[in-house]
Amino acid sequence: MSFIKTPVKGMPEQLPEDMVIREYVMRQIKDAYRTYGFNLIETPLIEHIENLTGKQGGENEKLIFKILKRGDKLAESGSEDLCDSGLRYDLTVPLARFYANNMDKLPSPFKAFQMGYSFRAERPQKGRFRQFVQCDIDILGDSTNLAEIELILATSEMLSRLNLGKFKVRINDRRLLKEMALFCGLPADRLDSVFITLDKMDKVGLDGVKAMLLEDGFDPAAVEKYVALYQGVNEVCQSSQDYLTARGITGVDPAVTENLDEIIHTTADLLGDKAQIVFDPTLVRGMSYYTGPIFEVELESFGSSVAGGGRYDDMIGKYLGRPVPACGFSIGFERIFAVLKDNHFVVPETVDTVAILIDKKAPREKVRAAIVEATKLRGAGARVLISWRNSNAKFQKEQLRQAGYQRFIEIFKETYDQKGNA
Amino acid sequence: MSFIKTPVKGMPEQLPEDMVIREYVMRQIKDAYRTYGFNLIETPLIEHIENLTGKQGGENEKLIFKILKRGDKLAESGSEDLCDSGLRYDLTVPLARFYANNMDKLPSPFKAFQMGYSFRAERPQKGRFRQFVQCDIDILGDSTNLAEIELILATSEMLSRLNLGKFKVRINDRRLLKEMALFCGLPADRLDSVFITLDKMDKVGLDGVKAMLLEDGFDPAAVEKYVALYQGVNEVCQSSQDYLTARGITGVDPAVTENLDEIIHTTADLLGDKAQIVFDPTLVRGMSYYTGPIFEVELESFGSSVAGGGRYDDMIGKYLGRPVPACGFSIGFERIFAVLKDNHFVVPETVDTVAILIDKKAPREKVRAAIVEATKLRGAGARVLISWRNSNAKFQKEQLRQAGYQRFIEIFKETYDQKGNA
Repeated sequence: MSFIKTPVKGMPEQLPEDMVIREYVMRQIKDAYRTYGFNLIETPLIEHIENLTGKQGGENEKLIFKILKRGDKLAESGSEDLCDSGLRYDLTVPLARFYANNMDKLPSPFKAFQMGYSFRAERPQKGRFRQFVQCDIDILGDSTNLAEIELILATSEMLSRLNLGKFKVRINDRRLLKEMALFCGLPADRLDSVFITLDKMDKVGLDGVKAMLLEDGFDPAAVEKYVALYQGVNEVCQSSQDYLTARGITGVDPAVTENLDEIIHTTADLLGDKAQIVFDPTLVRGMSYYTGPIFEVELESFGSSVAGGGRYDDMIGKYLGRPVPACGFSIGFERIFAVLKDNHFVVPETVDTVAILIDKKAPREKVRAAIVEATKLRGAGARVLISWRNSNAKFQKEQLRQAGYQRFIEIFKETYDQKGNA
Repeated sequence: MSFIKTPVKGMPEQLPEDMVIREYVMRQIKDAYRTYGFNLIETPLIEHIENLTGKQGGENEKLIFKILKRGDKLAESGSEDLCDSGLRYDLTVPLARFYANNMDKLPSPFKAFQMGYSFRAERPQKGRFRQFVQCDIDILGDSTNLAEIELILATSEMLSRLNLGKFKVRINDRRLLKEMALFCGLPADRLDSVFITLDKMDKVGLDGVKAMLLEDGFDPAAVEKYVALYQGVNEVCQSSQDYLTARGITGVDPAVTENLDEIIHTTADLLGDKAQIVFDPTLVRGMSYYTGPIFEVELESFGSSVAGGGRYDDMIGKYLGRPVPACGFSIGFERIFAVLKDNHFVVPETVDTVAILIDKKAPREKVRAAIVEATKLRGAGARVLISWRNSNAKFQKEQLRQAGYQRFIEIFKETYDQKGNA
């Protein structure tokens, strides 16, 4: 029999010590979002190929694991047509389908919460897998900024529960991003290219952005004006309106800045010392489907972005054929797990942990007594392992101590003394 | 854009009210098995096609969702060779691979616990899905019946936590099953066929089994003798040795019955009133890979089998190329979920649940005050939904009550009176 011991390329295996951390993180996330009234749902891992290739998925559509048709359907297929389904590459397409299919059974607005595997056939690299947990919260059917505020507060609650230290929420609005570029005379039909460059600000700096825009052939006067708007952008700013006024930017609908500043002020007031909420006019967020406020959360001590999202009022509606305002946050579960693991995080143990080790030659009544003892301890809430005592008991106990067992009960052969000597 | 609203054929969607039950069941299962020292692990959902088609999977191998190769690999493939991986159809093949790959990092014996999706392209039918949660516990590396005893006690603990009422554990041994058939002169090379018939006893009765065996062409004298061994099998029996002695069956290794009876007596003693543990010589269990004790758990009030398993000492070793004793239990998660759902089970709520409904025309400072109030309540442990008050607030509140919200706070427009009239 040919049997392959290693996992399929890019597929993750979770060892017990990793699962303890992962489970802990999942529970904290679930408990936090439940407190905020989000509804956990599950969508299938297999999705129609038509839905996966609807052009909303961008680059991800090239990374689909496709599933072969079966039986007659396969026999009738040409070589171009072998698959009718695939593994999902995100939780957004399945959410749109789920919502379309079950809308009449769901409350409105609907606060959805999903946590599950997605799959992307990316080039494997250290710490990145082709099967990974995604975690999304979305509010469907609320066009007001109560949605944004709730998403930010709930995600902050989740991060607080995980004790990941202070974090920063950077906020911008897609409409503002657009107006600022148009205000400078940059061409409306090439804004995506402008934003891809602007997004590199934290890597290349303002001068780098300027050089790249000029290289891309944008009008030098427009570029000059545009870059000037981002002078002093690194100073903490909590008002988009003040930012625009200070730079003399006109043409932005005051409802946009008012809406944005209300999100910033309300969440900043409520979060106090826990987090810094800032207006960041350089924030772009990759996906082009965002239509309003966008946000990104960064852990200050680890410098990693752990969550991001925004308003995408057009997408669900496109699937449904009628408008559905929507706003969501994607939580970087695998990133949070990696941060905790890299920092040797130990999940707090709240119960007594006991390993009962029995000598293989111990008489049967002693084995039975040990099982009775284990049952008693478990009944009192302890986590109890009952196992045979290995010949190298010192190593065994060291392993078990690392697995979290704090107490040991050793059952010896009758002729042994308490130290285990014959 | 072509967009399909319904799920792919046979794929499940979990609505919020179902997920509340599923999450509750999962937590009880996880907490129970953790108390018993089982280690939660995760294996990938995608497995090598070679491993999935190694003939251990029986009928399941016909139901594999196969994944198309990508890029150059696909281009170089002939039509017979389009797939190099597939979705797992159980958790046993992945466990064997995981153990082979990580053995040096795992304790010995290794108490494994898995809970995750498996996939089978079965003909869809009511309540059966092609993607379903499986939940397995296995002890690898323990050849003694301490493994069986721990598996039965742990699974009993899990069922007790779920308050599913009294249950029955039926126990047999594959070797006993075999010896009883050989003792009557049934042919060694056709035992699988004998057992498939015996397995139907609960449906067709002893006379039915007799008729079927005769129809299958077995020697009438042997059949007569065989059927006589199962007379009075429905009486509760807690000793395989007594059963064999009473029927004058010889040729069975006394170590087999002693081992079996020790499992029965130890678990029966410890479980007391919670469960009935019985020796059932008609218990077969489908998979042919079992080599020793086998067991099945049935809920008395619901008449459903909710877990089953046994010892399979040869299988992991076959994959590894060296012997690894193994014993496992498969818990029917979807069955347990269905029983609870059908019986309108309500997950006990342990916290205050509040829905704050805000009139859409309420002034901004009232909205802000409502968010502050929600934050305060959440900080005190409550689950709080904050939402806009729909025009049909009566229906909205009824829906929310069903979703578990017990208290309502309504924020009206200033000119409204407390009843919400303008």
